Amino acid sequence: MTQPFNSRFLSACYRLPTDATPVWFMRQAGRYMAEYRAIREKYGLLEIVRQPELAAEVTLQPVRAFGVDAAILFADILLPLQPMGLDFEFARGEGPVIHNPIRTLADVYALRPLEPEETLAPVMQAIRLLRAELGPTPLIGFSGAPFTVASYMIEGGASRDYKTTKLMMYAAPETWQALMDRLSTALAEYVTAQVRAGAQAIQLFDSWVGALSPMDYETFVLPYSKKVLEAAQSTGVPVIHFGTGTATLLPLMRQAGGDVIGLDWRVPLDNGWQAIGHDRAVQGNLDPVALLAPIPELKKRIHDVLRRAEGRPGHIFNVGHGILQHTPEKNVRVAVEIVHEWKTENGE
Amino acid sequence: MTQPFNSRFLSACYRLPTDATPVWFMRQAGRYMAEYRAIREKYGLLEIVRQPELAAEVTLQPVRAFGVDAAILFADILLPLQPMGLDFEFARGEGPVIHNPIRTLADVYALRPLEPEETLAPVMQAIRLLRAELGPTPLIGFSGAPFTVASYMIEGGASRDYKTTKLMMYAAPETWQALMDRLSTALAEYVTAQVRAGAQAIQLFDSWVGALSPMDYETFVLPYSKKVLEAAQSTGVPVIHFGTGTATLLPLMRQAGGDVIGLDWRVPLDNGWQAIGHDRAVQGNLDPVALLAPIPELKKRIHDVLRRAEGRPGHIFNVGHGILQHTPEKNVRVAVEIVHEWKTENGE
Repeated sequence: MTQPFNSRFLSACYRLPTDATPVWFMRQAGRYMAEYRAIREKYGLLEIVRQPELAAEVTLQPVRAFGVDAAILFADILLPLQPMGLDFEFARGEGPVIHNPIRTLADVYALRPLEPEETLAPVMQAIRLLRAELGPTPLIGFSGAPFTVASYMIEGGASRDYKTTKLMMYAAPETWQALMDRLSTALAEYVTAQVRAGAQAIQLFDSWVGALSPMDYETFVLPYSKKVLEAAQSTGVPVIHFGTGTATLLPLMRQAGGDVIGLDWRVPLDNGWQAIGHDRAVQGNLDPVALLAPIPELKKRIHDVLRRAEGRPGHIFNVGHGILQHTPEKNVRVAVEIVHEWKTENGE
Repeated sequence: MTQPFNSRFLSACYRLPTDATPVWFMRQAGRYMAEYRAIREKYGLLEIVRQPELAAEVTLQPVRAFGVDAAILFADILLPLQPMGLDFEFARGEGPVIHNPIRTLADVYALRPLEPEETLAPVMQAIRLLRAELGPTPLIGFSGAPFTVASYMIEGGASRDYKTTKLMMYAAPETWQALMDRLSTALAEYVTAQVRAGAQAIQLFDSWVGALSPMDYETFVLPYSKKVLEAAQSTGVPVIHFGTGTATLLPLMRQAGGDVIGLDWRVPLDNGWQAIGHDRAVQGNLDPVALLAPIPELKKRIHDVLRRAEGRPGHIFNVGHGILQHTPEKNVRVAVEIVHEWKTENGE
C-alpha cells in the first residue's frame, strides 16, 4: 500500500491511506511520566524550554517510551508573552500569572514585535536538535491561537468566564482588533519560524475558544486565526486546528483553516467530522479521563472512537485535550498498541 | 389576548402566547446588588439560607428592583449535602469544600436519606413566606441535577476536568449507580417538597453536565435526571431543565425531560430550539458578560436573542449562566425593559 512521507501521521493529515491509524497525545510529555518528573525535580518549566537540550530530551521521552507516530515540541503557548513585553511567570500551584495584563489601547501599542528567531532562539534550536534525533518520526511545532493567547494577556492568567476578554470585544472593539492584529502577526511569524527550523507540521491550540458564541467567534476571532493558519499552511506543512468545547464552532473553524481539525470528546467523532466536512482530516477525540480507566474499559472507548472514523482515511487518534497528570504510563503504552492493532477498512 | 395564570413566565413555560417575552436571570439575587452586599456584610451565605426571613428578603430584592417576571428562591444547589451526611462548607475565597467526599460504595451506603421537609425546613419556610409576599409574580424552586451535585460530592469541590467523577463511572460503575440512585431519590423528594411548600415552577440545574460526551450522558446521567424531572413534573408545575456547554446533549436532555430546556450562549437560540424540538419551550441565552457591556451593545445582543426566538410562543429570556459579580444594576434594569419593549409577532 501507499504511505507517502514514510509517516502515518503526515499521510493522515493529507487524508491519504495508512497501514494503521496514527496516534499521538496532546501533552504526551509531562508530569505523568517518571522520566519527566526526574527532570522537573532539577529544573522549572521555563528552564527546560530555555535549554534546547532539555526541551529536546523531554520531547523525545514519550516517543521512545510509547512508539507514538509524532513528536510534539515541548514548549508552552505563553512563551511569546515575555518577548512581547509582558511580565509573565508560572506561579507555584497557581498556573500562569501576567503582572501587567493588556487592558488599554496604549498597552497594545506598547507590545513589542515578537521576532521569534531571536527572542525564542532556544525553541528553534530545540527543533533543530530534535530533527537530527527523531529519524522518521515527524515533529509537530505549535502555537496558541490568537484568542486563547489574548485571553491570558488580558485576564492576567487562567479564567473561568473570560469576562475581561469578552468585555474588550464588546466595549472596546478597536483595542481588541489592535491586539489581535499584532498578536496574529506575531504568532504567524512564530509558526513559520518553527517550520524554517524544521517542524514538519504545526498545531494551533485554541484551547479556550469554546467559551464563545459562534457569532462572536466569527466577528472577533476567525479573521485572526485565519491569518495564522494561512501563514502556517503557506510553508507547505500540514496544519492542525484544535479547540475544546467547539461543537457549535466547527464549521467556522474549518472556514478559518487547517488541514486537520481537532475535536474533543463532547462531539461524537463521526458527527464532528460531518459538521466539518469530509474533505478535511480530523484529530481526536478520546476523553483524557479514559486513559486512567481499567484497560478493558479504555479499549472499549478507543474502539468506539476508531469505529466512528472508519471508512475513510484522514483520522489521527488523539485525546480530546491534554493527558492528565496521574495517567498511568502503562495505559498510554497500551492505548498506542490498541490503536495500531485496529484493522482499518481503508488501510489496504 | 389570552395569558393564562396571570403570568407571562408560566404561560411561556407552556408555550402559550404572552403580551411580552418573560424575563428573569439566573443568580438575579447576588453580589452585584448593593442591597444584597449590605446583607452579606452581616451574614454568611449559609446563614442567609438557614434564616427564612433573610432568604425571602434576598429573593425579593431583584423582583422589587428590576420588575423581572419570576422570582427564584435564594438557596444553593449544595444544601442537600450536609443533611445527607457530608461535611460541607463554603471556604473563604475557595468555593465549596467537602471534607469527606464520596469515593467508595461504603461512602454511598453511609449517606442518609434527605427528608427535606425536616432537614431543609428553612428552605420550605422561605418558600411559604415568599408566596405570601410575591403576589402575582411566580416563585421558581430549584435543585441541582444528580450529575452536577454528584460531581461536588465526589471531587470534594469545584473541578476543571471531573476526573474523579468520570473515573467512578468508568472504573466503578456500581458505585456510581448506587450514588446516583440515592441522590436522584433525594433530589426528587427535595423538588416535590418545594412544590408542596408553594414553588410554582422548578428548575433543575445541571450546570456542569457539558463536561460529558453524549454517550456518557445517556448511560450515566439521563436515567437519574429523568427520575428527578418526572417527579417534579408529576406535581403539576412546569419544569425547566438547564445546563451549560450542552450543544451536543440537547436531544438527550429533552429526552430526560422538562417543559422548558435552558440554553447557554454557545448555541444560537434558533439552532438550539430546533435541536430540542419546537414542542418544548426554551430559556436563555444571553452571554452574562453582555450585561456588563455598554447599553447599545447590550441592546443589540438582547435583540439578537429575541429575533432568534421570534415566530412562536415559548421563549423565556434569561442569561445562559448566572449573572456575574460586577454587573451594573442599571444594566439589569435596562435589560428587563429592552426585553419587555420588544414587539413579539406571537403576542397578539
